[in-house]
Amino acid sequence: MNSVQPYSIGLVFYPGMTALDVIGPQTVFSALPNVQIYRIWKTSEPIITDDGMVIVPDMTFSDCPSLDVICIGGGLKQAAIENDPDLLDFLRKKGSTAKFVTSVCGGSVFLAKAGLLQGYRAATHWTMRQGLAELGVEVSTERVVIDGNRISGGGVTAGIDFGLTLAKILWGEDAAKLAQLLIEYNPAPPFDTGSPEQASPELVQTALSFATEHLDLGRVVS
Amino acid sequence: MNSVQPYSIGLVFYPGMTALDVIGPQTVFSALPNVQIYRIWKTSEPIITDDGMVIVPDMTFSDCPSLDVICIGGGLKQAAIENDPDLLDFLRKKGSTAKFVTSVCGGSVFLAKAGLLQGYRAATHWTMRQGLAELGVEVSTERVVIDGNRISGGGVTAGIDFGLTLAKILWGEDAAKLAQLLIEYNPAPPFDTGSPEQASPELVQTALSFATEHLDLGRVVS
Repeated sequence: MNSVQPYSIGLVFYPGMTALDVIGPQTVFSALPNVQIYRIWKTSEPIITDDGMVIVPDMTFSDCPSLDVICIGGGLKQAAIENDPDLLDFLRKKGSTAKFVTSVCGGSVFLAKAGLLQGYRAATHWTMRQGLAELGVEVSTERVVIDGNRISGGGVTAGIDFGLTLAKILWGEDAAKLAQLLIEYNPAPPFDTGSPEQASPELVQTALSFATEHLDLGRVVS
Repeated sequence: MNSVQPYSIGLVFYPGMTALDVIGPQTVFSALPNVQIYRIWKTSEPIITDDGMVIVPDMTFSDCPSLDVICIGGGLKQAAIENDPDLLDFLRKKGSTAKFVTSVCGGSVFLAKAGLLQGYRAATHWTMRQGLAELGVEVSTERVVIDGNRISGGGVTAGIDFGLTLAKILWGEDAAKLAQLLIEYNPAPPFDTGSPEQASPELVQTALSFATEHLDLGRVVS
């Protein structure tokens, strides 16, 4: 038994989420000592991610204890959930007591919809920057943004950088470095197309068309 | 309807697996057109990953159609499964007809146990290099290794680089570049500790102690 109360980290798992958004940081946290991770949804019924994977949440909104960290990611089908009153109530409630209120990718839109990001700088998936700004958030193009106790990561794979950043804050630099070594995070991107600033205008346009089609949204930035 | 037969990609989902190993590439493949992904295990009963997440496979060994790509990842608890005759039979059977026989992280050990990697070069998680070599595989420290129709990635996060590499081969460079942009793979590792070659000897030793404890194995490399 560890005598220290573990850090409790709550990840919201909702239908249509992008799994990697929060599984990136989850993997980082799992390489750290003394942590309790909850995968939280309204019920314990399985959810289906936007890439078709079936995951069973292990904590419900109503049973969830207080959290040190609340985190929500984005998803190709997040629009259907963004105004869910139960979810926004849950985020507000846990956000009011959590040490850190956090998001990855389009998750920042949920936080903004819950009123938790106005007056803060935050990151999001690049296709959703305008949508987040329209909610009154100061949008940053940084990969990970720390503003007070709000920490947000950019799109999808930024969750790994976000996770290591939060690990440094909560567990210290040595532990975060250890986590990076254990998950062999020594990335070798095969192309220089990982951000709209790097990619060609044509590729950005193709990606926007894909995103518009799959997000089924009118808010995608052009 | 797309008139072209989709690429069928089978990911083995087993109890004790590291989710990110295969969810990294799964996320890449999901950003590509015309793909059918199967998450495969003996039964459709939920499996629990090594970080405690409950995932429901959507395809069984006995029902699985022929695959263009068979892929298996590693896991902190993979030792308990490594000699499973049903799994090794399944890998051999699908491996004999698949266009590509692939792995991420400790997944290469499963391929080797099934006799699918002897005579090939392959990558694995750095703590398992010696174990893989002892199975008669030519172990590489590269992040992604292509040797004939065997493709393997190094530890955990290398699955993303592996996924993009395979995407380039199957869908072409433009499609792979698009996938990289959509998942915003523009990594910003906070530390230079992502491989044992970069990390300090002390950190490597700490990581080996962690791995030995959690892997519950005697084969971890010193």
